[in-house]
This record gives sequence, C-alpha cells and structure tokens, in this order.
Amino acid sequence: MDELSLVSAIRACCGGRGRGVALGIGDDCAILRLRRGEELLATTDFVIEDVHFRRKTHTAADVGWKALARGLSDVAAMGGEARWALVSLALPKWADLRWVRGFYGGLRALGDRFGVTVVGGDVSRTEKLTADVVVLGAAPRGKALRRSGARVGDGIYVSGALGHAAVSGYRDRPEPRLELGKKLRGKATACMDLSDGLGLDLRRMCEESGVSAWLDGVLPAAPGATLEQALGGGEDYELLCTIPAGVAAPRELTRVGTVRKGKAGEVWFAGVKLGRTGWDPFR
Amino acid sequence: MDELSLVSAIRACCGGRGRGVALGIGDDCAILRLRRGEELLATTDFVIEDVHFRRKTHTAADVGWKALARGLSDVAAMGGEARWALVSLALPKWADLRWVRGFYGGLRALGDRFGVTVVGGDVSRTEKLTADVVVLGAAPRGKALRRSGARVGDGIYVSGALGHAAVSGYRDRPEPRLELGKKLRGKATACMDLSDGLGLDLRRMCEESGVSAWLDGVLPAAPGATLEQALGGGEDYELLCTIPAGVAAPRELTRVGTVRKGKAGEVWFAGVKLGRTGWDPFR
Repeated sequence: MDELSLVSAIRACCGGRGRGVALGIGDDCAILRLRRGEELLATTDFVIEDVHFRRKTHTAADVGWKALARGLSDVAAMGGEARWALVSLALPKWADLRWVRGFYGGLRALGDRFGVTVVGGDVSRTEKLTADVVVLGAAPRGKALRRSGARVGDGIYVSGALGHAAVSGYRDRPEPRLELGKKLRGKATACMDLSDGLGLDLRRMCEESGVSAWLDGVLPAAPGATLEQALGGGEDYELLCTIPAGVAAPRELTRVGTVRKGKAGEVWFAGVKLGRTGWDPFR
Repeated sequence: MDELSLVSAIRACCGGRGRGVALGIGDDCAILRLRRGEELLATTDFVIEDVHFRRKTHTAADVGWKALARGLSDVAAMGGEARWALVSLALPKWADLRWVRGFYGGLRALGDRFGVTVVGGDVSRTEKLTADVVVLGAAPRGKALRRSGARVGDGIYVSGALGHAAVSGYRDRPEPRLELGKKLRGKATACMDLSDGLGLDLRRMCEESGVSAWLDGVLPAAPGATLEQALGGGEDYELLCTIPAGVAAPRELTRVGTVRKGKAGEVWFAGVKLGRTGWDPFR
C-alpha cells in the first residue's frame, strides 16, 4: 500500500457532492458554503486504538461509525445541523486497504443518515491506529446552544438511558441526537453531550454556568447498568440540558434534577456531593 | 497530569478572542462567523512523532510551529486568509505540561503573525505523540485557487528555494506563503503547496488538470541541496503555480517550466520523464 493507492481508495469511498460543497476531497483545502444568516460550528475528536477502541472487539466499521458519531454528537449538543467532515487517519502496519474500506463504510453508514459529506482529511503512519474526525455544521446566527447558560431553578434533563455504552463494553454504536438538539433551540438554556458520564459532564456544565446541580430525580439507567456506569460510564452520547420551569421539555427527555445556587461545578446526588466521577484518559 | 489540568493549561495558552469567533475553546463546538460573500476553506494535517519530527532534533515549540504551518500553507495555496485552528493532541507519557506549553508557544508564535486563533480541539493518550491541526480560513466566493486549472501553455512557477527543508534535516521552521497566495488570486490558473517535493506535487497538479509538465527552467535549489532534495525533499511549503503567458508573475516566483499537452500527470525534467519522486510515508 502506497499513499496514492490509499488516497484512491478513500476517494472511492467518499465520492459524491454534498450540500454546500464547492470543492471536496483532492485539493489543499475543501471549499464550503454556508447559507445566509448561518454560523459555522466546528469540532474535532480523536478515536485511538486501545484508548477508544480495541482491535479484538471493534470491527473497522464500528471504529468508523464511532469516529464520526463523536463529532455529530457535539453538533447535536449545539442544536446544529451537521454538514461536512474531514477525516485524518494514521495507520499502523496491520491496517490494510480492506480495513480502511471497512472504516469508511461504517463512517459513511452514519454520515449518510444525516447528509454529512467527507470533504477532506490527511493520512499518515503511526503505531496505534488514530482517527481524528472534524465535523463542521451550521446553526442560525445566535441560536446555537451553549453549556454556559444554565440558570438557578432550571430543570436538568437527559435523553436516553445512562450507562448503555458501558453495559455493552463500549461496543454499541452511538446514535447522535441531532433531531433532539434542533428541537431544544429556543427551549434549553444550556446543552452539552454526555461523552464522559453525567457526573463529570454535569460538573463541567455547572462550572461554565457558575451554578451547582442537585440530582434528585430517578436516573434513567440503562438495563443492567450500575450506578457507577450510569454516572461515570461515559460514551453514551446522550444530551444533557437545562430547561426553565414552565417550558415543556421534549418527550425524549427525562428530568433528573434542578440547577441550584452554590459553588460553581458542585454536583449533589441524593443529598451527597459527588467526587470526580467520569472517564479521564489521563488518569 | 489529568485531563482538567491539561485543558486548563491549553486554555491559558490560547486565550483571547479572534476575528469572527462567537465562541472559542470550552464548549462542544466553536461558533464561527464568515463575512458576507465569503467561502469557508478547511484543511487538516497530522504531525506525528518519528514520521514528521523526532524528539531528539525538534523542540516542543518546533513541533507546534510545524503543526500549524502545514495547514496555513494549504490555505495559502488556495489564495485564502487563515482565521481559526482546532488542535487535537494525543500525548505519550513522556510529554508533560511543560512540553504542552512549549508546543502551544510555538504554534501561537506562528498563528499570531497571521491573526489565527485556536478555537477548539481534543486531547488524548497514545504511544507516539500525534498532533492533528485543522485550519479554517476564508476566500471571496468563487475566487479560491485550485490545483486543477493548469492549462497548456501556462508557465510553471515556484516560490523560494527548493530542498531547503531537506538540507536543514527537516528542522527549519516553514514560512507559509499566505501573502503570496492572496496575490495569486486572479493571476494563477492553478496553485498548490509543495509538501512532498516538486516531482510528486507537480505530478498531482498535472493529474488533476489533465496535462503534463515540462521542466526546462533553472531549478531554484536551496544552497547545498542535491537535485534529489530539490525535486523530492518535501516539506518546503513553498507555492507551486501556473500562470498564463502574458500575465506578470509576482517577483517572489521563479519560472521552472511550461504546461504541455500529454499524458495527464507526466512530468519531464531536462528532456527525461520523472519517476515517482517525493516523500511517501507508506513506502
């Protein structure tokens, strides 16, 4: 495998023009067009062998799906529409063209559902397989959701079941909540996605918003999930948001608590302060 | 070092609002604004330990500089203006907070010269240090340069001296040609940056344009560079472009040849066809 045959295989996997693509794969940059009155959303996420996946338990298509899902979930958390992706892929010797085609197959299977086009990227060599996927999206100007807007008295809500990724051994294929994110525009005061577990992610939201959180609702734990997995399992890619009293929450959401005055970032569960809970690759 | 202290250090390195930044580091996505009538340019490039740099010969600041320079050079090649960067950094155990601060110091030293703001990224663990830097820029709608527009009869030009990176042992700090790229809008029929050496990059330009190239000018080789280094050394990050007869070329450029009819992608030097020349990490 040389670089030209690799790039040819990738171009074959990622052909076709998408919305707003003036120039896709094959030049120094992609050229992309937003619609009038839109803002650009940009995010990038790693998926690395033995950190985010293992060869023994994840197919190439699983890895491709997950690599795109992480960024799509970030765009969902902002209430945006995902449009384009750039895929950087560093390959160890064991990863052949068949693996690469499988990876793009999984990535495209997810991307096609949301009309997301691969418009560029980079390839290189390394020891541990590394994908870094940029997702670019759009939202109407001034309407994107942020994690910093939670206000005292707001209800705290999550989508889906917590800890489902941990219960599956992190082998399930995450479903980015893009439709739900758009519904939350104009309703939620703050929103983010649950990538590292409710405990740590809610703490981050509260730090950015200068508030504390009181979890007093019933946690919608996934079947078979322990409390530790529901609070700190990570990789669920559900949405966490705050909605003011009196605003109807979409029915995909479950209320789990209330925003309170207090030390910024403190999270209380059943009357007890939570420690540092959640997945951290640096510990 | 845990993820929170790492992210705090990075935020301290990358504070400050840039042009068009509605929301920078710290949320699920950055929120960015183009000006009316502009198109978005997007590119991403890896810098990987033992592929693009070595710990023994490159300081952390060298690595940061180079990681941003690669993307800035891509935006220069499109005739665009660079605005924003997202930096993904996967760290082995040996890379401590001091190294990370050095890396961002080098990256910022280059970015500040062109008004480029770091607006996001990701951090993770790995075996070989891996940076993947996204650069986002802008060009007036329809005015970006492409590598596919070379026409029979156009002159072939390069900026700077070829092989300077190879002569330095790939330790010099590349200077992205952003000012020159903007000057080439409306003049050049095709443009790209020289990342893998004139031989391979010119072949790519000719393949995309459906033409062949005849190098008959004097190659502006860097002092001390061999012919192999001038044609195939790579990482010079100079611009390669084609300009029609009768159009004055900016004086930063040296004419090296002429676009000819022929098999798409063929490059001839001094009357002899070039083989596959240039740097390819997969060989």
